[in-house]
Amino acid sequence: METAYFNGKLLPKDEIKISPDDRGFLFADGVYEVVRWYEGFFYDINSHVTRLKRSLREMRINWSDADLVPSVASDLIKLNKLEKVPAMVYLQVTRGAARRTHSFPSPEVPPTAYAFAWGFVPDNQLKENGIKVMLKEDIRWSRCDIKSVALLPNTLSFQEAHENGLKECIFVRNGLITEGSRSNIFFVIDGTLFTHPESNHVLSGITRKNVLRIAQESGIKIREDALQENRIRFIQEAFITNTSAEVTPVTELGGNTLGAGVPGPVTRLIRDKFDSEIKALKG
Amino acid sequence: METAYFNGKLLPKDEIKISPDDRGFLFADGVYEVVRWYEGFFYDINSHVTRLKRSLREMRINWSDADLVPSVASDLIKLNKLEKVPAMVYLQVTRGAARRTHSFPSPEVPPTAYAFAWGFVPDNQLKENGIKVMLKEDIRWSRCDIKSVALLPNTLSFQEAHENGLKECIFVRNGLITEGSRSNIFFVIDGTLFTHPESNHVLSGITRKNVLRIAQESGIKIREDALQENRIRFIQEAFITNTSAEVTPVTELGGNTLGAGVPGPVTRLIRDKFDSEIKALKG
Repeated sequence: METAYFNGKLLPKDEIKISPDDRGFLFADGVYEVVRWYEGFFYDINSHVTRLKRSLREMRINWSDADLVPSVASDLIKLNKLEKVPAMVYLQVTRGAARRTHSFPSPEVPPTAYAFAWGFVPDNQLKENGIKVMLKEDIRWSRCDIKSVALLPNTLSFQEAHENGLKECIFVRNGLITEGSRSNIFFVIDGTLFTHPESNHVLSGITRKNVLRIAQESGIKIREDALQENRIRFIQEAFITNTSAEVTPVTELGGNTLGAGVPGPVTRLIRDKFDSEIKALKG
Repeated sequence: METAYFNGKLLPKDEIKISPDDRGFLFADGVYEVVRWYEGFFYDINSHVTRLKRSLREMRINWSDADLVPSVASDLIKLNKLEKVPAMVYLQVTRGAARRTHSFPSPEVPPTAYAFAWGFVPDNQLKENGIKVMLKEDIRWSRCDIKSVALLPNTLSFQEAHENGLKECIFVRNGLITEGSRSNIFFVIDGTLFTHPESNHVLSGITRKNVLRIAQESGIKIREDALQENRIRFIQEAFITNTSAEVTPVTELGGNTLGAGVPGPVTRLIRDKFDSEIKALKG
C-alpha cells in the first residue's frame, strides 16, 4: 500500500482526492519540487526548500509548512520502504479550492499540498554514453524562473522529442538557447563552460548551481551567457542537468553531432566529480 | 444540491473528486470551454464545440464525447434549475490520470471530463458605462490559440488588474496589443475597427467572431491587424469581448483615457446590435 502526503496527513495514496475546484486543476495555480533520495540522504534538500519558498512567494501562495518538507519527504521514504533504493519525492502546493474565478480567492482558502515518493532504477547508460536531444522554439511563458505546474508547454515539447527517439527538448528563444523542457543545459567551447544566466527564461536548477560550483572548484572557466543558436557548430561538448539526470552528456543537439559525438573531457570531469560528491556523502 | 458532470455521469457536485495524478492537476494538461445560457438557449454553442474539438486535436487528447456537450450543458441547466436565469456552463477535459511523467501516458488513459453550471446576475453598468483596464507585458506562452487550463499567467495578470481596481489586464507582446487575460479587445480609429488577427498569440473568441460578423453587416470597416502600443493615443474607442462580458466598452487603457472617456458610437452600435440579436433569439 503506497503512502502519500496530503494537507498535513500521511495517507494511503488511493484515499487522496482533489476537489475539481482546486485551482491547481482549473488554473495551473500551483508550484512543485522534486527531490532526490540517495539511499540515505536527500540531495541538497535545503536548496529545494529555498526555491519552493521563492516560488510560493512569487505566486503569493501562503503555505506555512515549507520548512516541514524535509521531514515529510523522510516520512514518505520510510513509510514506502524506499530507504535503500534510489528514490524521488514529488511535492506540489496549489492555491487551494474555490469557486472558479481568475482572481485569487477572497477570503483566502487553505492551499492544497500533495506529495508522494517512488523508487526507480537510474539509467547509467545515458550518463555514460550521452543522449541526443531536440531543439525547438521556446513556447513557454516568460516566468520560467517560477517552478509552477503550468507545464503544458513542457509536456507537449518533451512528447515531441520522445516520439522522435530523443531524450530531451532544448528550447531556443529569440535565437538564444535557454534550457530543456525539464533540465538546464551546459556547453563547452574551447574549454569554457557556458550556460544561460539565471533569468525569467530559465529555472534556477539545484543541480545547475552545484555544477557551477564544481566547475569553479575545478578551475574551469565559466561564462553564464546564453549561447546563440547559430553558434552550435562551435560547441565541442554539452550536458544537461537536473535532479534525476544529474549530469548527463549530450552528444547530438538538434541533429548536430557535438565534438566527436561522445562525452568530452570537461563533461566527464564534471560528471565524475558530481558522482564522487554523492559517493562521499553516502559515506 | 448542486449537480455537475463527471466522466459521462451527472452527480452531486460534492461527490466529484479528481485523482491527484490527474494530468490536469500535475501538468495543466487539459482544455476547457465556457458557454453562456440566455434563459432559453446557449449562445452559439456549436462554435464552442468546434473550438473545443480543435483544442483537443492540437493537444492530441482523444475525447469522444465533444458532440454531447450541448446535451450535457442542457442537463446541467435543467438539473440545477437555471432555465430562467442567466447562467454559464464550464467544461474541462484533461488527458486523464497516470503516473507522473512528462510524456503522454502510454498506453493511453481515459480523459477526465468535468462540467458544472452556475447562475449569475449580469453587471449591466459595466456594459453601459464601460470599464478601465490595465496594460501589461504578455507573459503567456505562445500557443494562446489553444484554450488550455494552463491559465496561471492569466490569473496572475488578472489579479494585478483586480488589485488596482481595473476590470481586465490587456497584454502587449513585442510592442503589439494582443488580447486580455480573459477577453479579446477591439479598437476604433477613425471609424475603422481593429483587432488582433487570429494567430498563436490570441484565442479565437466566439464573441470576437460574432462581433466581426456584426461589424461587417453594419458596413463598418474592419482591419484584423495588431495595434502597436505606441499608437494608443490614436484610439478613439475600445471594447472587450468574451462570453460573459459580451461587448463591454473600455474607456481607459493603461492609464490613457480613450476618446471622450465614455463609450463611443461604434462601440455602442455593435453592443446594441449584439444585444438585439440575443433579444431576437429569446423570441
